[in-house]
Amino acid sequence: MQIGMIGLGRMGANMVRRLLADGHQCIVYDINGDAVRALVESGAKAADSLEHLVGLLEKPRTAWLMLPAAIVAENVGKLVPLMQAGDIIVDGGNSYYREAVDIAARIEATGIHFVDAGTSGGVWGLERGYCMMIGGPEEAVRHLDPVFASLAPGGEGPTTAAKGYLHCGPTGAGHFVKMVHNGIEYGIMAAYAEGINVLKAANAGSREHTADAETAPLGAPQYYRFDIDLAKVAEVWRHGSVIGSWLLDLTADALKSDSDLAAFEGRVSDSGEGRWTVKAAVDVGVPAPVLSSALFQRFSSRGEAEFANRLLSAMRYAFGGHVEKKP
Amino acid sequence: MQIGMIGLGRMGANMVRRLLADGHQCIVYDINGDAVRALVESGAKAADSLEHLVGLLEKPRTAWLMLPAAIVAENVGKLVPLMQAGDIIVDGGNSYYREAVDIAARIEATGIHFVDAGTSGGVWGLERGYCMMIGGPEEAVRHLDPVFASLAPGGEGPTTAAKGYLHCGPTGAGHFVKMVHNGIEYGIMAAYAEGINVLKAANAGSREHTADAETAPLGAPQYYRFDIDLAKVAEVWRHGSVIGSWLLDLTADALKSDSDLAAFEGRVSDSGEGRWTVKAAVDVGVPAPVLSSALFQRFSSRGEAEFANRLLSAMRYAFGGHVEKKP
Amino acid sequence: MQIGMIGLGRMGANMVRRLLADGHQCIVYDINGDAVRALVESGAKAADSLEHLVGLLEKPRTAWLMLPAAIVAENVGKLVPLMQAGDIIVDGGNSYYREAVDIAARIEATGIHFVDAGTSGGVWGLERGYCMMIGGPEEAVRHLDPVFASLAPGGEGPTTAAKGYLHCGPTGAGHFVKMVHNGIEYGIMAAYAEGINVLKAANAGSREHTADAETAPLGAPQYYRFDIDLAKVAEVWRHGSVIGSWLLDLTADALKSDSDLAAFEGRVSDSGEGRWTVKAAVDVGVPAPVLSSALFQRFSSRGEAEFANRLLSAMRYAFGGHVEKKP
Amino acid sequence: MQIGMIGLGRMGANMVRRLLADGHQCIVYDINGDAVRALVESGAKAADSLEHLVGLLEKPRTAWLMLPAAIVAENVGKLVPLMQAGDIIVDGGNSYYREAVDIAARIEATGIHFVDAGTSGGVWGLERGYCMMIGGPEEAVRHLDPVFASLAPGGEGPTTAAKGYLHCGPTGAGHFVKMVHNGIEYGIMAAYAEGINVLKAANAGSREHTADAETAPLGAPQYYRFDIDLAKVAEVWRHGSVIGSWLLDLTADALKSDSDLAAFEGRVSDSGEGRWTVKAAVDVGVPAPVLSSALFQRFSSRGEAEFANRLLSAMRYAFGGHVEKKP
Repeated sequence: MQIGMIGLGRMGANMVRRLLADGHQCIVYDINGDAVRALVESGAKAADSLEHLVGLLEKPRTAWLMLPAAIVAENVGKLVPLMQAGDIIVDGGNSYYREAVDIAARIEATGIHFVDAGTSGGVWGLERGYCMMIGGPEEAVRHLDPVFASLAPGGEGPTTAAKGYLHCGPTGAGHFVKMVHNGIEYGIMAAYAEGINVLKAANAGSREHTADAETAPLGAPQYYRFDIDLAKVAEVWRHGSVIGSWLLDLTADALKSDSDLAAFEGRVSDSGEGRWTVKAAVDVGVPAPVLSSALFQRFSSRGEAEFANRLLSAMRYAFGGHVEKKP
Repeated sequence: MQIGMIGLGRMGANMVRRLLADGHQCIVYDINGDAVRALVESGAKAADSLEHLVGLLEKPRTAWLMLPAAIVAENVGKLVPLMQAGDIIVDGGNSYYREAVDIAARIEATGIHFVDAGTSGGVWGLERGYCMMIGGPEEAVRHLDPVFASLAPGGEGPTTAAKGYLHCGPTGAGHFVKMVHNGIEYGIMAAYAEGINVLKAANAGSREHTADAETAPLGAPQYYRFDIDLAKVAEVWRHGSVIGSWLLDLTADALKSDSDLAAFEGRVSDSGEGRWTVKAAVDVGVPAPVLSSALFQRFSSRGEAEFANRLLSAMRYAFGGHVEKKP
Repeated sequence: MQIGMIGLGRMGANMVRRLLADGHQCIVYDINGDAVRALVESGAKAADSLEHLVGLLEKPRTAWLMLPAAIVAENVGKLVPLMQAGDIIVDGGNSYYREAVDIAARIEATGIHFVDAGTSGGVWGLERGYCMMIGGPEEAVRHLDPVFASLAPGGEGPTTAAKGYLHCGPTGAGHFVKMVHNGIEYGIMAAYAEGINVLKAANAGSREHTADAETAPLGAPQYYRFDIDLAKVAEVWRHGSVIGSWLLDLTADALKSDSDLAAFEGRVSDSGEGRWTVKAAVDVGVPAPVLSSALFQRFSSRGEAEFANRLLSAMRYAFGGHVEKKP
Repeated sequence: MQIGMIGLGRMGANMVRRLLADGHQCIVYDINGDAVRALVESGAKAADSLEHLVGLLEKPRTAWLMLPAAIVAENVGKLVPLMQAGDIIVDGGNSYYREAVDIAARIEATGIHFVDAGTSGGVWGLERGYCMMIGGPEEAVRHLDPVFASLAPGGEGPTTAAKGYLHCGPTGAGHFVKMVHNGIEYGIMAAYAEGINVLKAANAGSREHTADAETAPLGAPQYYRFDIDLAKVAEVWRHGSVIGSWLLDLTADALKSDSDLAAFEGRVSDSGEGRWTVKAAVDVGVPAPVLSSALFQRFSSRGEAEFANRLLSAMRYAFGGHVEKKP
């Protein structure tokens, strides 16, 4: 079938390629003309504005947004006047599910369907297929089934879930499930990172240690004299262990090619869904200590604990005369 | 080759079966005679005591222990006088790596090698193969290579790590890596559990809520009206998503067969390695908030926060006259 | 001066008493007639409706709300049509600061001032005075200064802060600061509760321990044979230690009168501000692992981790055949 | 009475001064001769070696150590041969309670008493008195009562606890209680620091924000436009609020004199007892998420999460092509 794709970044461009490869027709638009041209070479049809894109679509039209969360609402606002009852707007980005709920309520009277399609798979989705978590009206989701089927990994499963896509509920449900998915992702990533960091420090007993009142002594250095090959450990865990996963596969690859990870400084971004997951847990009153710890570590990695830490040092100085140690 | 296996619980028995299937000879011993007899039917040779087991082994002998951590040292103590320089004792259980370091130091003069082989794979290892993390003297580990190769999943990898077993370092290194492995496992499990618990509560806005000074109001109920099918969500995440893993495969299976998990009460055991990982992180001074949160949740699941919680209620009563709400 | 107090629960009633004692005139209203009558005996004037209360006030009128957060907006909605430009509505309850921001924006055109006055002090405030964190227009806050001065502890301080009340900023700022105050309160309470729980368990080495694969062995029981008198420890910490505080004073009292805290079950309520603090931290991207851990413990104390825990047990059963242990 | 003080750092020197002021006789020793001379001016008697110090004491002798944890055992080892049955060695430093248990067991046959006296009060103890948590044999603790009474704040309390010192149990119990005390201290400090950090960020909605796929959008900037005066807030909380404490007094002072805390970089030391508290919680199986979060933040403040963070960035790059943002 035919869809219009708006936003041709890493995710959007690859999704277009996967759809083209499966015989769908794609009208594509991005403010970056190079991104448009690259896909035209792959068989997409170019649009040079939202109006143009809508004009090129046959009814019922499907406009699929792959944009940063911050600019989705604005673009939906531009699309709605260009479209008609029965048309479909899909938000496939990492948007806040509440925005989907709000947008659906706002445009309900227009008869335009709003579908939120949480999409996981990253840069590998082109090849592996994307896992899709979908919210929206039954009718619209059913209409888009061929698109979801092409984007998803597919396979012989008896249900769409087993093929990699799922209609999770009314509008918002898709992004809600994707939000929690990413929250979990943060937790899993942190679990590996913390564990491997402990392995890296397993030779602490072989290093020099200071003995002063500001430094906790390492009680039993004889138990920390291991020089662990982190890349090999990540590799061995991939084979038959309980913690095998796709994230571990990627971790093993990363450590194999650069065991010191010198290409990175350790300022870890978060793109919103981890935050929203923690806020949802707080709202509904269920504990999420692991997911929130993982999120807060990312904030700390970017220096956001600094004032709190200075306050701790100030208190230590005030009650104990402790002067900060330099590195 | 030939090994003696001591301890025929879930893990030990299946490891014997996998070794027998690959042509190794196994002498087996357990205080539970039924466990011994079951393996004799599969081709193992029975021993009715440690002495008997050692007597049946050819030199250099290998005695492999698959026992609860609490009784490993005692059994090693009994084995050492029965064995000779060049013989090998393997501890394949979930023992504290420090015990391996201590045992190795203690028996060094006897010339008996002590090898610690952390083993992951659970009840599935028989079929999938076990991931093995090994510490010990080069000579002993090399001697046992055919055993490790049979127990591990195998495959075409260029290194033993890629086949599922790894010599991680001197005695203790194997259990150290396995310890951290399990610490990570706790974190990953908790990440899934917390996230899915949020999904389960996603219909909080459709439930009745009390409005009193002891209850936090749900600010925006319109955003929590999703009835999520947890089993289907776990299934869809297995296909193409970033959080696909073997633990997720098992989770999807569990939810498919019993979506309420009514067979479980939620008292979660911990068998030591999660604790040791947190203590190691504390010793070497690296942060492990996710791994420790996962561990502490397990403690709480068993009621161990109760007195702390009563103290919180007592404080609330003392400063605010707040009376505990009943469920 | 004269104020109208709406909501005569624990907090509202005592604040009226403190104001009366300092010579202010109070018109009081509550849906519970007994609460009204009790204060009339102390010198307040009764109103039997919001209309009645507003009618009894002289201009510029001050209506002060001490109500559960969930019903503040509704009551403000009823008051606004009864009042006039220059009148003041104060919300002194544990309301969400965002509601104050929204209400102020909504009623701005009426010229009625909205002041949010976060109030700490609990049942002890009558005697000790209340700590007040105030947001709102300069003019209104200045007008209410005599009321704040009477409610606050007072003293010789050179600033209002040193007397126990502070104009923190525009409407919302008072509740924002009170929100964070309560978030901190949760953290401090949890710190004491966790620590004292560790002390209570300091005799773990003297108790019987199971040795099986589902139970982590206590490695060094000889170090856990202390029977600590918790009430005496809480008392000694009050004198000269770094962790002395008013919450510790209350804790010591509570343990002195009932060392087992048998009057409590350990279901700990949270009344909203801890949640909002965590959400604010997430919004602004600063780490709050301690405050969120304290909040999540309260959720867990009320059984909200149960499904997550059952899921953990289900996973353990699936990969390792582990059966849940009974208590 | 008479005691010998070994170790004249911040704590030891002030304790000597407080004892001298109350009429006790002090023999003092430190490797730093200036520290010794300063106290001689205050009325102490100098010793120039451990032997000398012991020689100057009358029987039963009391040698009191105020030394870094790392060198206590070594000094006890030197003292024991110089002393006799009935003499007393006190460790008043921040030592691991297990060391006290071990030392007591080791020297039991000599008849020399080993007393562990956990001491809180910091640089303020000279003036305010020290809170003392004591472990050891009844006889020795009773003998030292005049010293404890002089060091403690004192007062009219009916028990020693109410005067600021407590015999908590056998040797080790004092340091155990002090250990948990410090664990709690870390948690309380972190609660204030996190909360005040949230207040500092309360103007996030007035700052510029980037809108790209690597940055979580601030959903509702209108709610984060407060410029909070942190020093004044800390001050107001000291008067009548639930979170008043001595640490808050110090915090308010620190913010008053330097609201940006520019004198500190935020590298927060930990001197061991927070670590031991977490390890004890893990050993006895009680949850301590707040105390451990507080500890791990300190580790992170010193850069110890860096490799873990680089690993997170490496994973994000691997699955999503995400490139680290620069500050």
